[in-house]
Amino acid sequence: MKRLKLVIAYDGSAYCGWQAQAEDGRQRTIQSEIERVISGMVKEEPDPGTRDEHCLNPIRVHGSGRTDSGVHAQGQVAHVDIPLKSSGINWKNALNAQLPPDIRVIGADWVGEDFHARFSAIGKEYSYTLWPSDEPVNPLLAGLCWKTRPLSLENMQSAATVLSGEHDFASFQNSGTDVKDTRRTIHSIAFFPGLAGVMTCPRDWPVVSIRFHGTGFLKQMVRNIIGLLVDIGLGRLAAKDVLDILKAAERAKNPCRTAPAHGLNLLRVIYP
Amino acid sequence: MKRLKLVIAYDGSAYCGWQAQAEDGRQRTIQSEIERVISGMVKEEPDPGTRDEHCLNPIRVHGSGRTDSGVHAQGQVAHVDIPLKSSGINWKNALNAQLPPDIRVIGADWVGEDFHARFSAIGKEYSYTLWPSDEPVNPLLAGLCWKTRPLSLENMQSAATVLSGEHDFASFQNSGTDVKDTRRTIHSIAFFPGLAGVMTCPRDWPVVSIRFHGTGFLKQMVRNIIGLLVDIGLGRLAAKDVLDILKAAERAKNPCRTAPAHGLNLLRVIYP
Repeated sequence: MKRLKLVIAYDGSAYCGWQAQAEDGRQRTIQSEIERVISGMVKEEPDPGTRDEHCLNPIRVHGSGRTDSGVHAQGQVAHVDIPLKSSGINWKNALNAQLPPDIRVIGADWVGEDFHARFSAIGKEYSYTLWPSDEPVNPLLAGLCWKTRPLSLENMQSAATVLSGEHDFASFQNSGTDVKDTRRTIHSIAFFPGLAGVMTCPRDWPVVSIRFHGTGFLKQMVRNIIGLLVDIGLGRLAAKDVLDILKAAERAKNPCRTAPAHGLNLLRVIYP
Repeated sequence: MKRLKLVIAYDGSAYCGWQAQAEDGRQRTIQSEIERVISGMVKEEPDPGTRDEHCLNPIRVHGSGRTDSGVHAQGQVAHVDIPLKSSGINWKNALNAQLPPDIRVIGADWVGEDFHARFSAIGKEYSYTLWPSDEPVNPLLAGLCWKTRPLSLENMQSAATVLSGEHDFASFQNSGTDVKDTRRTIHSIAFFPGLAGVMTCPRDWPVVSIRFHGTGFLKQMVRNIIGLLVDIGLGRLAAKDVLDILKAAERAKNPCRTAPAHGLNLLRVIYP
């Protein structure tokens, strides 16, 4: 087997998230689409003499982490072990030829077997895009940003500085996970105009993206932080409430909603 | 009745074009969506004493012209006559509240009854976006550009200058129209990086938009010109062939394909 590292961009609008759904194989996920294509290409070619010789399917693709239903990615990373016989394939081209156009492999490189998409990662960058205006969202961005009432960005920036650094983010982790250690470090939370850290919009479009760089993020942590920042921006909460919510270390004591998934974009996964 | 001028942006991906389909009312079009919403809002309120008193439905929305299935718009224009009783409505907000998010009314203003979205127009601007590269199209742009092999933009620009100005564009008009006068004036054909004349993409994205400004355009004329320019860019045709194709004034003598609809964007309609 040879280990392949994939860098993947996707428009998550049409998918039930990254993770293959064990309970219902009929739901389309990014992971299951990629596994389907790779499995179809290698199933006739198991390595002779290996334990995989008679194990044709499924090929398992290991992501750096899950993205929720509707979340987009510019640089999700995954690894997959490919039988030696199939290592001559140009995997980037072969995958793009068979995957739907809303999933694109933008990089495919052989790596050592000590590389693990999830456990080798030392950081991630996310971007969340807002349309804080009473003006209608331009239809080209409808699936990429969250429309809110006008926001006080200044107050949001003050609150963001409170959240930066190393903290127990239990107040920002939604249920449905068995993660025990809820301490994480956010290196930076930066505000800038434009789309998802990737495209520049015209000056008269009220588009703001908030970019997060951290060691790792709990379940729906970025969306919960955005929910809080938007409540700050709307004046429902004061910047001083942020520290209380953080210190409570309990999601139930955080009154803010989880921001919708479609504003979120996984920009890149960082490795040493 | 009072005449309302609407400026409309849409992502055309999910629609069978602008025009309501007489032969099959079940197909979703931009026009039929807008007519459905307006008709629903005014049907209880015909003006007393007018000839429309007993003509409840449908309200007819008149566009500046058709856009094909899959074509997008940043600034389509339409007009619609609204019964006086409904003239107090904030139509921009009311329409956006009921239209699907991929259709947005970005302007709604009362105009004189001499204004006609189609006949008052003196010009249009379109943009066509290409991804001329062997690299995969970023999924965020998958529905907005045409992926081609790498192109010689220099040769395409030479060919574009031949097409600028006033010409008989019959070679670039597809069948299925009763337009007799096929002379049109293209004021400019300009190339620039980025998306559809509206968004700026990162420098390493191979995105090129070609922007057309003219007095008016025949059926699928922009897409046919793009088909020719791409054949020039691929080296299948020489810039000198362009004049022959133009002079033939017959679509059948133009060997180039019609570029796919989803790369096209109606940027604006120009009025005096």
